[in-house]
Amino acid sequence: MTDFIRTKRTELHRLSNRGAYDREAIYSILDEGLVCHVGIVFEGAPFVIPTGYGRSGDQLFIHGSSASRTLRTLSEGADACITVTLIDGLVLARSVFHHSMNYRSVLVLSKGTLIDEPEAKIEALRLITERLVPGRWDDVRHPTPQEMQATSVIAFSINEGSAKIRIGPPKDDEADYALQIWAGVLPLLFTTGAPIPDERNLDGVTLPSYIRDYKR
Amino acid sequence: MTDFIRTKRTELHRLSNRGAYDREAIYSILDEGLVCHVGIVFEGAPFVIPTGYGRSGDQLFIHGSSASRTLRTLSEGADACITVTLIDGLVLARSVFHHSMNYRSVLVLSKGTLIDEPEAKIEALRLITERLVPGRWDDVRHPTPQEMQATSVIAFSINEGSAKIRIGPPKDDEADYALQIWAGVLPLLFTTGAPIPDERNLDGVTLPSYIRDYKR
Repeated sequence: MTDFIRTKRTELHRLSNRGAYDREAIYSILDEGLVCHVGIVFEGAPFVIPTGYGRSGDQLFIHGSSASRTLRTLSEGADACITVTLIDGLVLARSVFHHSMNYRSVLVLSKGTLIDEPEAKIEALRLITERLVPGRWDDVRHPTPQEMQATSVIAFSINEGSAKIRIGPPKDDEADYALQIWAGVLPLLFTTGAPIPDERNLDGVTLPSYIRDYKR
Repeated sequence: MTDFIRTKRTELHRLSNRGAYDREAIYSILDEGLVCHVGIVFEGAPFVIPTGYGRSGDQLFIHGSSASRTLRTLSEGADACITVTLIDGLVLARSVFHHSMNYRSVLVLSKGTLIDEPEAKIEALRLITERLVPGRWDDVRHPTPQEMQATSVIAFSINEGSAKIRIGPPKDDEADYALQIWAGVLPLLFTTGAPIPDERNLDGVTLPSYIRDYKR
């Protein structure tokens, strides 16, 4: 895999030891996230919108109502910044100054392209659905032509971007290691609760194994 | 409490039944989040950066290195969009089209103000630290003058914004309720793992109760 283009815009001015440009690191973070935050400029001001997404190779997909202002702006080829952030833990140092979080985040700079071709569009919707709940697509009713028309799908090529990663214990000033203060990491995890069946499920319908065994 | 200003920019064009402008709803989401995503415009393009934050009344605070490009841009009064997103569950409908997530998100449009006054600055840092780990501030070494100088704190007044909330079961098309498909909600929770003590903790240092009993 070729690495990301390292542009002036994505150069990490700070903490560059935490920055990564290799595709494998970036894809693994994208594939673990549940929502991305999409930034656009509208009438000169920034807007940041959370949404689900899918990925295939160097393409990232989002979808939404065809009537949405964000989707329409992106359809017209506006600049976008797509950020995915995974929080892994709280880093508790001996000084306020060195408190931090363990995290993995990816920032992608791109412009969107509206996907109109029906086969490509349905495949993008499949990827978005399957990333949310692998196994779900084949189990549910597929989109009607009307639903397809009401939905816009935008593709972004993933070429300009970077990852930032912090892992490991706190890093304190040498003198602070002599302080009688508990330091360490408190891991944070995203987990599932017990599935809540819909009240209108038909008799005899059972919980699918891909939901029972769902892991993030 | 007065409600948020409802401007053309924050008017919810879509799904307006999911939109809320009352301060209590917005503050409760802000107070539960761990990171926000800050959007700025830099040389005409959007950038979205994750970071911790604090809140007091109608003020939201972020901090970072005084050398950071984002912090410098915000110090100069640039427009910012601050988005906080809590994911509560996966909504599994009978059709692909009605799949969704249960979530609570807040979008705040504001301009930053650099906090220079030492007492206000240290209080903002205390709020940011205490929101991460309540009880931590009084236990650790406070910032030195050098550390204070290396840190910028930006305040945003929370006046223009909105919340979007989706709760509850899937909403399917009436005809789809006759399908033999399991539908429901898979709750998602943010939880903690076992604390990992730093290898260089001194003998006799014990885990503080506010970490042992930490809840999100």
